[in-house]
Amino acid sequence: MQNYRFLIEYDGTRYNGWQRLKGNDNTIQGKLETVLSRMTGQEVQLTGAGRTDAGVHARGQVANAFLETDLSGDEIRAYMNHYLPEDIRILSLEQAGERFHSRFCARGKLYCYYISTGEKAPVFERKFLYHVEEKPDPEKMRQAAAFLTGSHDFRSFCGNRHMKKSTVRRVDSIDISFDEEREILKLSYQGDGFLQYMIRIMTGTLLEVGYGRRNPEDIPGILEALDREAAGYTAPPQGLFLEKVYF
Amino acid sequence: MQNYRFLIEYDGTRYNGWQRLKGNDNTIQGKLETVLSRMTGQEVQLTGAGRTDAGVHARGQVANAFLETDLSGDEIRAYMNHYLPEDIRILSLEQAGERFHSRFCARGKLYCYYISTGEKAPVFERKFLYHVEEKPDPEKMRQAAAFLTGSHDFRSFCGNRHMKKSTVRRVDSIDISFDEEREILKLSYQGDGFLQYMIRIMTGTLLEVGYGRRNPEDIPGILEALDREAAGYTAPPQGLFLEKVYF
Repeated sequence: MQNYRFLIEYDGTRYNGWQRLKGNDNTIQGKLETVLSRMTGQEVQLTGAGRTDAGVHARGQVANAFLETDLSGDEIRAYMNHYLPEDIRILSLEQAGERFHSRFCARGKLYCYYISTGEKAPVFERKFLYHVEEKPDPEKMRQAAAFLTGSHDFRSFCGNRHMKKSTVRRVDSIDISFDEEREILKLSYQGDGFLQYMIRIMTGTLLEVGYGRRNPEDIPGILEALDREAAGYTAPPQGLFLEKVYF
Repeated sequence: MQNYRFLIEYDGTRYNGWQRLKGNDNTIQGKLETVLSRMTGQEVQLTGAGRTDAGVHARGQVANAFLETDLSGDEIRAYMNHYLPEDIRILSLEQAGERFHSRFCARGKLYCYYISTGEKAPVFERKFLYHVEEKPDPEKMRQAAAFLTGSHDFRSFCGNRHMKKSTVRRVDSIDISFDEEREILKLSYQGDGFLQYMIRIMTGTLLEVGYGRRNPEDIPGILEALDREAAGYTAPPQGLFLEKVYF
């Protein structure tokens, strides 16, 4: 059995997220495992670095699986891309050491969230943006974001209210840039890992600050509350991309 | 009445092309004229620089129309983008001299055709590419393209077999580039104007050369034949973009 590391791109629009669910294989992991199992004639388990939610996209998801096959790397990639739906692509794969585990070995991840803030949303990317009517104030959002960086207990920003494991995470940086030409606000989150819905709840909360409905200085209190109710709304999935996994 | 010049972007997938048809308003021009007529309370006629076919896209279509309105340019753009479907956007508009005519004043146009030649077609642009199974030979295609540049009678490359007007056009350049990483072949056509289906027939013919089914040296004979049957097939619309109109 050889361990393989995959670099994967997908349009998450029509899937129930990355993680395979019982009795429902309309997940990215499920689609990939089905093709790999057919290819090898054995049941294959794939491990993804990030468990993206339903509707969330990836340009750089990393996953690994142990395979028993005589095919070369190029042949595996060609086989998979032939049988996968066109909204999931294997960009590359390589042999990995047997101790490589895409989730445990990941040192960090970069997620980007794209918000269209005007009436000129680009038509060719329109399904991969969150559209809002008015432009929020990026400077206020940056002030608020500064309070979110660092190591914190992010329980207030966790979508799973029954989370039993640690909700402490380290957010290395939140960059907020604005493309004046196309009126696109881009929020780039880098960190060691993110809780369920965490980026979307941070984005919704930052948008509320950008619209003046909260103050940047409210963020420390929201973190301290350790209560999902204290934070803002969950921004929708279509603007979110897993861009890169760092090892 | 003030003449306005519009810069327009659209995803042509679900439209019957640019030009308004009798008894059918599912055209880009029709959608735009309907919104402009509602805005001004008068019937508005819009003139486009290029009559893109059904399914063809534009990043830089230019059109003009005479409008009677008290609205500012920004207000017109905002009104239009509010009422237009999200796959048609007004990128900008400006007042133009009364002699400005987007078709007659256009000095040239740039169209690009995008072909995905491998199994790694990018998922987020997959609907705006023509997918082929194998990579054609770009060098042979360049040799053939060289015979198409210059002023020629392009009757063999005209989709309208009953075309009564001149079919002489000047093609300034055909650039063919290949993105190794994503296996995307890009054909960039610049010229003074193009006949109906002309770029798609040139693309189909160049692909046949790229696959060795024709030779680059066949092109002069195809041009001389002045017969649509002599040229290759019509490549499908989804890979074609009107990128820019030069004035």
